[in-house]
Amino acid sequence: MPYNDLFLRAARLEPTERTPVWMMRQAGRYMPEYRAIREKHGFLDMCRNPELAVEITLQPVDLIGVDAAILFSDILVSFTGMGLDLEFAKGEGPVIHNPVRSTADVDKLIAADPYEATGYVMEAIKLLRRELANKVPLIGFAGAPFTLASYAIEGHGTRDYEYTKALMWGETAAWDRLLTKFADTTIAYLNAQIDAGAQVVQLFDSWIGYIAPRDYQRYILPYTTRVISEVKAHGDATVEGGVPLIHFPNGATSMLDLAMQAGGDVIGIDWRLDMRAAVNMIDARFGIQGNIDPVALFAPDDILESMVVEILEAVGTRPGHIFNLGHGIHKTSDPEKAKAMIQMVHHHSDRIRSRSAE
Amino acid sequence: MPYNDLFLRAARLEPTERTPVWMMRQAGRYMPEYRAIREKHGFLDMCRNPELAVEITLQPVDLIGVDAAILFSDILVSFTGMGLDLEFAKGEGPVIHNPVRSTADVDKLIAADPYEATGYVMEAIKLLRRELANKVPLIGFAGAPFTLASYAIEGHGTRDYEYTKALMWGETAAWDRLLTKFADTTIAYLNAQIDAGAQVVQLFDSWIGYIAPRDYQRYILPYTTRVISEVKAHGDATVEGGVPLIHFPNGATSMLDLAMQAGGDVIGIDWRLDMRAAVNMIDARFGIQGNIDPVALFAPDDILESMVVEILEAVGTRPGHIFNLGHGIHKTSDPEKAKAMIQMVHHHSDRIRSRSAE
Repeated sequence: MPYNDLFLRAARLEPTERTPVWMMRQAGRYMPEYRAIREKHGFLDMCRNPELAVEITLQPVDLIGVDAAILFSDILVSFTGMGLDLEFAKGEGPVIHNPVRSTADVDKLIAADPYEATGYVMEAIKLLRRELANKVPLIGFAGAPFTLASYAIEGHGTRDYEYTKALMWGETAAWDRLLTKFADTTIAYLNAQIDAGAQVVQLFDSWIGYIAPRDYQRYILPYTTRVISEVKAHGDATVEGGVPLIHFPNGATSMLDLAMQAGGDVIGIDWRLDMRAAVNMIDARFGIQGNIDPVALFAPDDILESMVVEILEAVGTRPGHIFNLGHGIHKTSDPEKAKAMIQMVHHHSDRIRSRSAE
Repeated sequence: MPYNDLFLRAARLEPTERTPVWMMRQAGRYMPEYRAIREKHGFLDMCRNPELAVEITLQPVDLIGVDAAILFSDILVSFTGMGLDLEFAKGEGPVIHNPVRSTADVDKLIAADPYEATGYVMEAIKLLRRELANKVPLIGFAGAPFTLASYAIEGHGTRDYEYTKALMWGETAAWDRLLTKFADTTIAYLNAQIDAGAQVVQLFDSWIGYIAPRDYQRYILPYTTRVISEVKAHGDATVEGGVPLIHFPNGATSMLDLAMQAGGDVIGIDWRLDMRAAVNMIDARFGIQGNIDPVALFAPDDILESMVVEILEAVGTRPGHIFNLGHGIHKTSDPEKAKAMIQMVHHHSDRIRSRSAE
């Protein structure tokens, strides 16, 4: 197989002969090959073991046929290097046993050194680049300042964000120090991933959709903007042609203008936004990543296929489209269905792009 | 105190001298007076006891100073009349012990008769109208077909909707029969509430924000449209001036155009949409209800006040604004803070409307 660089070219907004596709959480629980490893290891142990992380990262590349690999890891792995006591409790998701609730808690945290705290990530990236040399590009990733801060403050996943917003509105100076520490951590972490060989990076602002636009603009945008700007500058300075950055502000339909202001080369959109609307709302200087409903993998093939085609037709030949789910793949999804979807994207995007080239 | 009909006039898009305000879940757990009753009774027992429902409904009117009362009840109370085994487990929210998972399950359900299944609701409404005669208008409410169906199918609250969407896409004929049963139930239920004396009705599509616009349009919009159209027709036929309907498609920023197509007199919006954007997106023939972040009640007074003012200034003197939270009040909110917010809305809307009248 020749090296498949479709994803990298699309992320650079170069024309591609078909649309590249990968899936958020593609290296994960829906695959029996992943579950076989998970049965024997703790989640964080898997992240911290470069050989296991490499094996898991490669599974969907080899078995599902995606056009990009994304490092198997978690947006919270830097937490331990910041002084946060992180645990992945079985079946419960992440728990932080010493959540940040006061200005004193904020001042105890330090920006994590990416090599001391997460050297295993850089090692996994280096190993992966060797393994992937004849396959597909490698994506690195990190959490955006708000998403990281809200986990650190709440101590677990939530839909409420009472502690987070109370600190944001009530202790604005401490909020600034906290978001600065997360921004510094994420900048150093993504820059180290780039130095290790990550070819594209994705910034996950997974929980930003619970924030009102006014608050995003005042309390969050400056930090996200700085992360993107400094990581882009580092990529430009160290990598020929730069390192594309995918900015995924999940659930942020009402403030895509602000998300674009924060920056990135490609804006990731969730499935709630119709792709025809997205194409109008997102400036042509950005690529678009997305956005089929992850639950579409539970639909009959003909319905799934019609959804794939609708998205591809809406994008047409606009450069910079990276097909993806609108959020992470669900753990009960059928890998065969995922594989079928990848093939549908390949088939129909090739057809649509050939047709328009006639 | 003279009868305060501000809310009713705003819901009819008539000019008002200040902006009426109420809060979703205003009769609920954040109030110690509510918790005192809850300690002694099961949740469904409270809904089914008209005297208790009346007492709880009146608490925020008397103690917090809202401009409308909303019947204390739950969108799922009709379920038992449809053949669904509903329970509110302590601290867990609603559970349906016989969830709808097959076409056979769909065909077992019946549209509920509002009097047989929920006669206690009509009794509570009649009692409330007498109690409220010298106070404020009374809001009735029901769940929209999708939100009800997704509860019935999933069996509990979720963020995934795998069973719901699998049925929607995979068993479209059964989906049609199911949504028709929920639409019929909601139409009869709201019409009965109107006959009992509800002066305004709100249709909660609480979970519609998990649906892509394409699916809303194809699989849900026809049923929601029929509910709104038939309930409006009933109000027009039986009540002088008709019965205003507030349509609340929670989280539906990306498909407000479709929500407007479904109808209603007032569109409720959640806090993710900036009110300036909402005023542009929502046709002037609709009123707007919303939309401060419910967590703003955890902000310092000056920040809370600035958020209230921003929303009121964004609306200006456009008729039909009903101030509300962008979602239900959180159970750990301070009732004094809620009361302060109500007074801020009154004070500033009076100021803004007087200023523009000069």
